[in-house]
Amino acid sequence: MFDEQEGKTNFSQYKKVDTLKVRGFCEALFCAYGFSSDDSKIITDVLLRADLYGIESHGVQRLVRYHDEITNGQVDINAKLKIVHESPISVCIDANKAMGQLAGVESMKLAVKKAKVSGCGMVTVRNSNHYGIAGYYTNIAADEDLIGISMTNTEAICVPTFGSQAMTGTNAIALAMPSDPFTFSYDASTTVVPRGTLEVFRKNEKPLPDNWALDANGNPCNDAAVVIDNIIAKAGGGIAPLGGLGMLNGGHKGYGLSVMVDLFSSVISSGLTSNHVNRQPGHTGICHYFMAIDYGIFGDKQTIKNNMSKFLQELRDSKKAEGQNRIYTHGEKEAETMSQRINGQIPINKKTLNEIKVIAEKQGIKNIDF
Amino acid sequence: MFDEQEGKTNFSQYKKVDTLKVRGFCEALFCAYGFSSDDSKIITDVLLRADLYGIESHGVQRLVRYHDEITNGQVDINAKLKIVHESPISVCIDANKAMGQLAGVESMKLAVKKAKVSGCGMVTVRNSNHYGIAGYYTNIAADEDLIGISMTNTEAICVPTFGSQAMTGTNAIALAMPSDPFTFSYDASTTVVPRGTLEVFRKNEKPLPDNWALDANGNPCNDAAVVIDNIIAKAGGGIAPLGGLGMLNGGHKGYGLSVMVDLFSSVISSGLTSNHVNRQPGHTGICHYFMAIDYGIFGDKQTIKNNMSKFLQELRDSKKAEGQNRIYTHGEKEAETMSQRINGQIPINKKTLNEIKVIAEKQGIKNIDF
Repeated sequence: MFDEQEGKTNFSQYKKVDTLKVRGFCEALFCAYGFSSDDSKIITDVLLRADLYGIESHGVQRLVRYHDEITNGQVDINAKLKIVHESPISVCIDANKAMGQLAGVESMKLAVKKAKVSGCGMVTVRNSNHYGIAGYYTNIAADEDLIGISMTNTEAICVPTFGSQAMTGTNAIALAMPSDPFTFSYDASTTVVPRGTLEVFRKNEKPLPDNWALDANGNPCNDAAVVIDNIIAKAGGGIAPLGGLGMLNGGHKGYGLSVMVDLFSSVISSGLTSNHVNRQPGHTGICHYFMAIDYGIFGDKQTIKNNMSKFLQELRDSKKAEGQNRIYTHGEKEAETMSQRINGQIPINKKTLNEIKVIAEKQGIKNIDF
Repeated sequence: MFDEQEGKTNFSQYKKVDTLKVRGFCEALFCAYGFSSDDSKIITDVLLRADLYGIESHGVQRLVRYHDEITNGQVDINAKLKIVHESPISVCIDANKAMGQLAGVESMKLAVKKAKVSGCGMVTVRNSNHYGIAGYYTNIAADEDLIGISMTNTEAICVPTFGSQAMTGTNAIALAMPSDPFTFSYDASTTVVPRGTLEVFRKNEKPLPDNWALDANGNPCNDAAVVIDNIIAKAGGGIAPLGGLGMLNGGHKGYGLSVMVDLFSSVISSGLTSNHVNRQPGHTGICHYFMAIDYGIFGDKQTIKNNMSKFLQELRDSKKAEGQNRIYTHGEKEAETMSQRINGQIPINKKTLNEIKVIAEKQGIKNIDF
């Protein structure tokens, strides 16, 4: 995911914390909410992967929102997933308000299991919660030498072309395909930027770039706080779809992609579409989609994997624009950042650290050594 | 498809021609190249559908390019598709230089057949040719009450983020999902605009909007002729991915989507990736992907279709931006335009008409009554 763009320029606002310490803390925190040790490890692994990839918006800075969702009853810590429909290549699941990360990992594992038997597995999930980075789940499939796809709707934040009211979510699409020397791993919202990036801009008190967001009347807006507050208050406005405002640069395409995410996550699962997510107390209703494809159903796997690796290398080797010296392929930056951080440190915004300490104290965790 | 934007403002440059006459002419023209009557009808139906939908860039204005590809041997009018790999849910096809429309219709029908038996069918196709609008094929699946997906690579025209060399094609993604009162039908390139739109701008002698295209050194460029000529000469530059130049507005997302299109069309079929398409005489090597999903594998079909129809109606009914009075859902404009034109007339650019008359004469068709 390349979604982080402008938020981390002022590194004086960040503190580097040992990755192992953050992991231990998060696991203890989730245990304190009442999750089992195993479940706490899974949730923490998804959350920390975002920080390891360099995707601050979906890492520990989300702990405050998770705290709220767990303590206000939107998340049921004892939820069991229920299969409501099944075929040899598909499952429809009711997550019964499970933590999104737990629903996500179990559902993608189910998709992988079906793909190994039938060539592909598709799992649609309703009544879940925010599941972190979509790319975590696609990489579960890629680690099994399969193509992984995942999508999720969210609370409405994206305004359709010519609209002034948020109707779809950031509605991420992620895809991972095994390749050398690292997995192709695409993971991006279908909005110009995800909500987390607006939150980072607000935290850093920076104005939003043009063409990113709209005020309550559907006019362009550069104030992250105004946009986020309007979204929280359901007062109108929101983020532009990928392609921006109007149709000139293809905003209608991003709008359409966001509808497709709702199709696979909420429409076929008979769950809540983005515009109905988080509209009732004690229930977000977020929906996901997971797909695993054994690409061996199209031909020799090694040949196909080599095709992909060669193509990606050609992209990286292609001619650079004036002033540029590197072309990335998707997943490359994340793999590099993770290799630096996994046995090292994670930079955490100091405001985030303070927020974390407040919720930790509420859960009775007092001796945080960072 | 909403890709047509600025090209048709000057209607004095267009002549309205009876749809039936255009259809008859096209069928006669393809017969004159040597295609069977049935094949000529299929090719014509795909081509005309673009004009009926209002997608001028992919309609009869493409006849000149098809003429070149057929007469220079890039298209083999007698090609038979060959299945090179098959499973209960998948097929890999070598199209043997077939006309793209013929390869496309046959392949989507195969995907539909598998979906009806196994729940889904995925068909990847190598060694084909330009197949027209991707949305034609997805609607074959939708007409059978299935979700249809199609993608195609093309000759490289899209420059990756931070690059100056076109490496991926316009690489369209299309998806159709049955819904009332009309099918949700998304069909758009993963570039800011498709090549056809640049051609319409050149034909109308209009400058390109900012953020659409790059010159040979990877700098922004507003001259459609320069961009197209560079592309034809493989001299560098091209069109920006959806999201535009750089990363600020998410250009890296469009770039990633275009790579995903190549993954499903050319990588898993072991065909030519976009950057190798149209690099040898007598062979374009364009690749496609087709998928049909029986959405009944996730639950009751009528319920799911109703979910989709309700969601789309909510989008259309949502609050408009200041100065706007309508929010469209994808496929709506096309359905409206087609209902006006199918038994009426199609506007054709007068320059296109002149070009058509030249190639018609070459094929011995002299009495064109429009």
